[in-house]
Amino acid sequence: MTAPGTTPTPRARQTVGGLGESGILRILNRRFATVPAAGDWPEGTVGPGDDAAVVSAPDGRFVITTDAMAQDRDFRLDWPAVPRGLASRSDGRTEGGPDGGSNGGRFDGHGFAGGYATGWKAAAQNFSDINAMGGEPSGLLLALTMPPTTPVAWIDGLAAGLAGAVRHLGAARCRIVGGDLGSDDRITVAVTATGDLDGRPAVRRTLPPAARAVTAGADLDLVLCGRAGWAAAGLAVLETPRRVLDERLRIAEGAEQKEQKEQAEQGDQLDHGVRRLAALAAAAQLRPRPVLGAGRVAAEAGALAMMDVSDGVLKDAGRLATANGLRADLDPDWVRREASVLVPLARALDPASGQRTAECWVSAGGEDYGLLAALPTGATVPPGFRRIGRLVAESGAPAAAASVGSAGGWDHFTDR
Amino acid sequence: MTAPGTTPTPRARQTVGGLGESGILRILNRRFATVPAAGDWPEGTVGPGDDAAVVSAPDGRFVITTDAMAQDRDFRLDWPAVPRGLASRSDGRTEGGPDGGSNGGRFDGHGFAGGYATGWKAAAQNFSDINAMGGEPSGLLLALTMPPTTPVAWIDGLAAGLAGAVRHLGAARCRIVGGDLGSDDRITVAVTATGDLDGRPAVRRTLPPAARAVTAGADLDLVLCGRAGWAAAGLAVLETPRRVLDERLRIAEGAEQKEQKEQAEQGDQLDHGVRRLAALAAAAQLRPRPVLGAGRVAAEAGALAMMDVSDGVLKDAGRLATANGLRADLDPDWVRREASVLVPLARALDPASGQRTAECWVSAGGEDYGLLAALPTGATVPPGFRRIGRLVAESGAPAAAASVGSAGGWDHFTDR
Repeated sequence: MTAPGTTPTPRARQTVGGLGESGILRILNRRFATVPAAGDWPEGTVGPGDDAAVVSAPDGRFVITTDAMAQDRDFRLDWPAVPRGLASRSDGRTEGGPDGGSNGGRFDGHGFAGGYATGWKAAAQNFSDINAMGGEPSGLLLALTMPPTTPVAWIDGLAAGLAGAVRHLGAARCRIVGGDLGSDDRITVAVTATGDLDGRPAVRRTLPPAARAVTAGADLDLVLCGRAGWAAAGLAVLETPRRVLDERLRIAEGAEQKEQKEQAEQGDQLDHGVRRLAALAAAAQLRPRPVLGAGRVAAEAGALAMMDVSDGVLKDAGRLATANGLRADLDPDWVRREASVLVPLARALDPASGQRTAECWVSAGGEDYGLLAALPTGATVPPGFRRIGRLVAESGAPAAAASVGSAGGWDHFTDR
Repeated sequence: MTAPGTTPTPRARQTVGGLGESGILRILNRRFATVPAAGDWPEGTVGPGDDAAVVSAPDGRFVITTDAMAQDRDFRLDWPAVPRGLASRSDGRTEGGPDGGSNGGRFDGHGFAGGYATGWKAAAQNFSDINAMGGEPSGLLLALTMPPTTPVAWIDGLAAGLAGAVRHLGAARCRIVGGDLGSDDRITVAVTATGDLDGRPAVRRTLPPAARAVTAGADLDLVLCGRAGWAAAGLAVLETPRRVLDERLRIAEGAEQKEQKEQAEQGDQLDHGVRRLAALAAAAQLRPRPVLGAGRVAAEAGALAMMDVSDGVLKDAGRLATANGLRADLDPDWVRREASVLVPLARALDPASGQRTAECWVSAGGEDYGLLAALPTGATVPPGFRRIGRLVAESGAPAAAASVGSAGGWDHFTDR
């Protein structure tokens, strides 16, 4: 609120220090109200605004997970939604535009857009964990610490990003149920999500004892839903200085046009222009899209063990294997195939070793939030999944390619 | 893990950067395993270690709340459990000692003790929110961001403090269900708690519509369970430089002994020595004790509205009133009575205005996590509660004393 007699601060430069907690809550709640289910609280449940919320759990259990994101580690205040000059007109409009920024739907680098990407990602990675147990999101909770100098546009974007992820990722039964505000020198966003299993058993990382007896000694098929390597490619795009990126993309486009002309003469067609690839990769980093139905589909198709890919396929497949006393062998053909579409972008950014860079993105890059599942060998691969390797006994002969324990990928504390 | 050929770091100086995520998880899980219910996961539920946990919700709903605490704002790394020289032998031992510190049960200012106090408080304030809906804690989730330089002893203390609060606050059905680790420049602790209502309706801040019709126009009694002002007094103790504190307590003890002698001659007895008061106040700040059964008791006794006191009685009673279009009138006699036991300590710390300081602690001091409830006028006060004032129509005549909208108390963002 503005004290009588003072000049109001222009909205674009307003900070949360000038609003107080109740002002901040008004802004958050206005965004959260855009989630269709938010207004619809069944008898006996309680929405935001009280000491705590009450969420329904129809089958007498609920799935729960939490993730914290820290400024300059897991997100950056100055990240645009999609870098200007990369985005096609539809990229921003669909998800954050018309319903829209406090800056009138226009994304800028220091306010609404950075908040939107952060909110989206916080929701997406929690939904991905619910998905990986075979559940469907039912609730979302936000604990936010930030300095009084935080731009109001940023938290407005954060709330819009959370609500946007609920809508656009298809978490149709998910309610935004409340949270907590606190002050700190930098921003930390901690999101908790809950989910329903609708009476199904949860699919864990470890095989159920019954399955372990049946499959004893036999290999398992390792299947993946969702893409791998795109978020890592996007990180590379976003971390390349704008001027350098533009120049490299221009050079690559020059080569592309020449090639395209030759291919057109041969009747071939090029899938993606390299600039479009760069925009898609940046969007994959800033708007990860876990396939929320996939956990349920895999559970119903008989998946024996499941986990989501947050730290890279190599590392997380290794974890899934280790949890069951097995070793993960990735199919080298799958890595090459998955990398192939990213190679033109990798080559543009790093002309000397494009193929190798793209394969690193695919095998070690995190934050795509794909879903890994283990199935009995030869089982029908569930819709939306692809077979990407095997889980084999530790003593089995290693495959030609990447054979992993828990090497590769990301550790928050040791940089290994 | 220590690489072969390197000298292991002495435990006392070990940091989390040397452990990696799996080493940190081992330390946390060892502490969490001390909670009795932790080992006992009913059929169909899932404990820590997977993408997400599955918690039972027997009545088909669950209560959920979250709180984030930031280093140097909500806690300090260098806070001892209870300042040396204040603590009686039992203060540390009962709650954090024998089962025990990584430093063998000995509290020190920079490691285990600071973590323990932080973990305890994080659990206590979340349990208090569950309590304030009339629920009982069923699950606890930890999202922790911290720098690689964080002492291992500190996170060991944090985990022990969370588990200690579960045990010692009587959250007998509560399980520690999982969490998330991330790195940041400073520590943020975000805890989420869930609770059961056992089929009872949740008690909200706002009167249920039926009650509003019945009580229309009539005043409500305002009752409180738990102490007020002790945590604020403890903060004053902990913030007074040690040398100054010691000198002031010594002076006060001198006066006390003189007075005690005179009172002994008159047959009176003094309740608390001022040094003992200071220790109790510090413990109230570092180990807040919400009365977890109180929410259920008040709900069953017909409480119409309820909320916990985290930002001070004045501010939170004002919020409870405002939520119902009413005004809170605190009973000035209650404030004086509640303050009286703290006056000797207030006078020791601030000789010029002891009475006023103690009354400020009681009316505006936060973090005691008492429970406020509104009852029909003249209703039987539930066991453990005291009548501390009234909720009256905005147009009613103000009481002699503190009549509040939402003034006083603490706002994270505006310092008002």
